[in-house]
Amino acid sequence: MLTLASDFGSPYPAAMKGVLLDRLGDVTLVDVAHDFPRQDVRAAAFWLRETLPYFPPAVHLAVVDPGVGTDRAALAVRVGDHALVGPDNGLLLPPARRLAARQGGDESDVEVFDVAYDDPDSHTFHGRDVFAPAAADVHAVGVDALDGIDRLTPLTDDDYVDLTFPEATVASDEVTGEVLVVDDFGNAITNVPGDVLADHDEATVNGERVPVGDSFAAVSEGDQLLTVGSHGYVECDVNRGRGDEAFGLATGDAVHLEF
Amino acid sequence: MLTLASDFGSPYPAAMKGVLLDRLGDVTLVDVAHDFPRQDVRAAAFWLRETLPYFPPAVHLAVVDPGVGTDRAALAVRVGDHALVGPDNGLLLPPARRLAARQGGDESDVEVFDVAYDDPDSHTFHGRDVFAPAAADVHAVGVDALDGIDRLTPLTDDDYVDLTFPEATVASDEVTGEVLVVDDFGNAITNVPGDVLADHDEATVNGERVPVGDSFAAVSEGDQLLTVGSHGYVECDVNRGRGDEAFGLATGDAVHLEF
Amino acid sequence: MLTLASDFGSPYPAAMKGVLLDRLGDVTLVDVAHDFPRQDVRAAAFWLRETLPYFPPAVHLAVVDPGVGTDRAALAVRVGDHALVGPDNGLLLPPARRLAARQGGDESDVEVFDVAYDDPDSHTFHGRDVFAPAAADVHAVGVDALDGIDRLTPLTDDDYVDLTFPEATVASDEVTGEVLVVDDFGNAITNVPGDVLADHDEATVNGERVPVGDSFAAVSEGDQLLTVGSHGYVECDVNRGRGDEAFGLATGDAVHLEF
Repeated sequence: MLTLASDFGSPYPAAMKGVLLDRLGDVTLVDVAHDFPRQDVRAAAFWLRETLPYFPPAVHLAVVDPGVGTDRAALAVRVGDHALVGPDNGLLLPPARRLAARQGGDESDVEVFDVAYDDPDSHTFHGRDVFAPAAADVHAVGVDALDGIDRLTPLTDDDYVDLTFPEATVASDEVTGEVLVVDDFGNAITNVPGDVLADHDEATVNGERVPVGDSFAAVSEGDQLLTVGSHGYVECDVNRGRGDEAFGLATGDAVHLEF
Repeated sequence: MLTLASDFGSPYPAAMKGVLLDRLGDVTLVDVAHDFPRQDVRAAAFWLRETLPYFPPAVHLAVVDPGVGTDRAALAVRVGDHALVGPDNGLLLPPARRLAARQGGDESDVEVFDVAYDDPDSHTFHGRDVFAPAAADVHAVGVDALDGIDRLTPLTDDDYVDLTFPEATVASDEVTGEVLVVDDFGNAITNVPGDVLADHDEATVNGERVPVGDSFAAVSEGDQLLTVGSHGYVECDVNRGRGDEAFGLATGDAVHLEF
Repeated sequence: MLTLASDFGSPYPAAMKGVLLDRLGDVTLVDVAHDFPRQDVRAAAFWLRETLPYFPPAVHLAVVDPGVGTDRAALAVRVGDHALVGPDNGLLLPPARRLAARQGGDESDVEVFDVAYDDPDSHTFHGRDVFAPAAADVHAVGVDALDGIDRLTPLTDDDYVDLTFPEATVASDEVTGEVLVVDDFGNAITNVPGDVLADHDEATVNGERVPVGDSFAAVSEGDQLLTVGSHGYVECDVNRGRGDEAFGLATGDAVHLEF
């Protein structure tokens, strides 16, 4: 099984699928998403971290790649019986660490490899010409035997680009964090751990007093609320509406909570 | 085989796919749509009714769920060798009745079950934490043996939420109906049965005289027409253009036809 | 294996998938794209030509069909062990010729057949009622035996609609071409062969002097460049931005290059 994720929109993902199917025969392909915010490596890493751990063992091909055509490396990352393949820009590390944690492991279970590649046909579509062939190679030999692929070289953590999410600052009666991503519903998902909302019925968000609810339906249709979203973080939401618009929040904006 | 449908956009459907694949192994998943008009249960029920009957026997997971996180029930519905799984808000009943009719049956062939579930991890993503696991259970035991699942309880029609579409009022020389949905092309699909257009070359729609045509090409590019769409209803369309804009119609708007 | 492509948006492609799965059992379906520019046969033919050759042998169902409901024919096209099925409006010919070339053949390896069909249920959805059943028939008998299907009749090239892309006019120090398509990133893809950029560091595009680069990263973020895209053509692009907007170009616009 292979999953695919990118910021390619349409129809470029289909060329990657063609390459994979041509090399691997009738393998199962599953799209994670191809509409990640364009060239936003951090947002894509967030979504991959929150989504890939639900999958059974698979090779995960992920391409959000503002450095396409430069000399940035290609990586393969192994975490138990999962593997991730994509550009060396930090994209793969947050989901890899989460996969390790879900398997009861830790950072030491994340193995990172450089994937050597020849100068490809295209300097603008490494998804098709570099990463899909690399993912096919990993799938063909199997995740267990991945380190037997000649063009793979183990890396230490000084050798590749890492990416971590900013952490919220949590005090007893106030929290400062930021919006990590806005989802398709308009929910503004912050980096503030959901447990700060425990025992609170309302809170002040950037100066505005709003109720805290267990679910959207805790408030009337069209009303704002703070809730713990499906990722475990505080979200600034609207029941049946868009939280980003009501709260005036976009990705990267600061969020200051007071209780 | 499992089909998936929702108003989740992207990438939330991928988490549901991960849950299904993790529980069922390499099952075939087919997306119906994940861009149903947000939280519009009626529109989603319309599209499911018009689409699911073309599929071979399958478990159909469908989630448009404005009541997520409340105590609304989860349902499984069996119709012959098809099953539907989703929230108790009417969504599943129109496609279930259509599936029964396509199989030569009637309303009595629609069996509805309550699906008991524990308090899930998330109050905002029952698609991942409640409905996908329930659909996996139904698929795992098989639709034939669905009623053997312990947490399923048969319901009578007083016990669940039903949904029916408004019917048009048809007289000999005039018809009053409404727009049920607008499709991606901008075709305004009404609830008026297509046969009212038989033997008419033109009609008045909300006061405007337009031709009746067998196909878009019956009128010049950019011109309005009434035609019988692929669902069997009267549509207010434009050849190679958007009927909703030309006729000034949106979902729920009244449509008055005179001949 | 079947691939599907259309300008149908959502959820109409699902009805085609239902028809295919109902007739063929658990066949592998792969979406190429369903958001081709609406009713733009030339743009769709371009994307199919650039995408389908990456796939292993398959039946390719492609429907962009402004003439739906008229008496335009349905075609099946065989190229080696690939087959294409769709409307007789030129859509299938550019990808068919490219598939022939990739297999080391030429135009003579493209075999075109008329597919006879009964008056379908719908005059507005031949994708579901005409083309999907035809593709299922071709897949069921196999591409090798396609000419044994009774309702298929071989055609000569006078009998069907062809489509070719306009060619750029290339002189030693200037080139005149046009924009064939704009991709989802906003890259304006022209019909000018990429090799005209060899040995040039900059060029004038419609009067504006811009750098020539091997990849997006050859210029600063937000800056314009000319590059050779993944299709081998000159593209008018912006590093991490939209070339169509920066250059003021849309599909069909003339592009005049001077060196």
